[in-house]
Amino acid sequence: MTRWKLTIEHDGRPYVGWQRQAQGASVQQEIEEAIQKFSGETVRLHAAGRTDAGVHALGQVAHFDLQRPSDGHTVREAINAYLRPQPITIVSAEPADEHFHARMSARRRRYRYIILNRPARPALDIGRAWHLAYTLDIPAMREGAAHLIGQHDFTSFRASECQAKSPVKTLDQLDIVEDGAYLKFEVSARSFLHHQVRNMVGTLALVGRTKWTPAQVAQALAARDRTAGGPTAPPDGLYLVGVDYG
Amino acid sequence: MTRWKLTIEHDGRPYVGWQRQAQGASVQQEIEEAIQKFSGETVRLHAAGRTDAGVHALGQVAHFDLQRPSDGHTVREAINAYLRPQPITIVSAEPADEHFHARMSARRRRYRYIILNRPARPALDIGRAWHLAYTLDIPAMREGAAHLIGQHDFTSFRASECQAKSPVKTLDQLDIVEDGAYLKFEVSARSFLHHQVRNMVGTLALVGRTKWTPAQVAQALAARDRTAGGPTAPPDGLYLVGVDYG
Repeated sequence: MTRWKLTIEHDGRPYVGWQRQAQGASVQQEIEEAIQKFSGETVRLHAAGRTDAGVHALGQVAHFDLQRPSDGHTVREAINAYLRPQPITIVSAEPADEHFHARMSARRRRYRYIILNRPARPALDIGRAWHLAYTLDIPAMREGAAHLIGQHDFTSFRASECQAKSPVKTLDQLDIVEDGAYLKFEVSARSFLHHQVRNMVGTLALVGRTKWTPAQVAQALAARDRTAGGPTAPPDGLYLVGVDYG
Repeated sequence: MTRWKLTIEHDGRPYVGWQRQAQGASVQQEIEEAIQKFSGETVRLHAAGRTDAGVHALGQVAHFDLQRPSDGHTVREAINAYLRPQPITIVSAEPADEHFHARMSARRRRYRYIILNRPARPALDIGRAWHLAYTLDIPAMREGAAHLIGQHDFTSFRASECQAKSPVKTLDQLDIVEDGAYLKFEVSARSFLHHQVRNMVGTLALVGRTKWTPAQVAQALAARDRTAGGPTAPPDGLYLVGVDYG
């Protein structure tokens, strides 16, 4: 038996999210079925992050066990052949230690959130960025973001359906980078609460349009109450960029 | 009467190209029809570059004349309302001088060509990059590209259906920039022959996979014969980035 580590890129638009659900195609199901077709084995994929419907991945990581011996090139190419023409691709397949666990072993998860900030709606990035037409106060957003860095109880930015045992997380990075009409949030932590990135971005957008002061972000955090936080930004702009191990 | 200058972003995939054709939807037709719906006027749009089927635009420029008085905000928003949900958007609409001509007045056209250079096929950029799985010798490609800079007879890189009067063009820029697994060609000139960018990229890809030496690019150019040039790269990776005037 070999444990395989997959690095996965996918478009989030056609799927109900990472996880299998009663209705609708999931990324997990599509890849599990492709593995079954190539190997004849029924496997269970475990991912580093269970992304929601519409959320994209550049570097999702998942593992599974295969009885049949193989090599990285063959595993990658065979799964990709059966995934075609779907917008899911295995970027790499590597044999991993038997104790490797995509979710449990992850040391850092890196996300990017992209806002398209201009009057005109997107054409090339429909479903791949959050369109905000009003002018944003970016220095104020950065000031608000600074309040979120570090270890905090993030209850105010946590989805009601979140299954994490504790609302205390350590946010290592929340940088806001301007790139033409695009505003890119680079966010990283060991782990996140459900909807945490989208709730933080939705809140910082309130600061950007000067509906909130930067200090109100700190107040919302201190309230430890989801109703004190801002709205959830849409999934369109969110990308799981990568997961670090070891 | 007001002459309007439009800056246009569009996905190239659903269209037969910029220009109206007997069969299939064109970018020109979609925008002309949106203008007709909002203004009641039948207009003719003139674009800076007649992009082919599958070619994208971040900053195509086109002009048209409108009898009805209006302002830039209204023109942009009204056309965009009628274009929705198509992947075409008017980024800006500005009143222009009556002598302004999107094609004739253009001083510089800027294109980008994107190659995704990794073993795995694209998922997020299906139809938006040229996938090359083999390792590319990028310094050799840059050496080959250097032979194309300046004023030359580009017959070897000219489509047979090209309607330009002269095959002599001045290539101002052909930079190759690495960005992770992406290779971006930044190309600019006052004007280009039909398929010139795609033929240059297709030729430089031969150099990248060491089927050609960099010197063979110079030889192909000197031959002034399309059969001496390399193959045409697919439209998927090509973007009209912008057009400069004045």
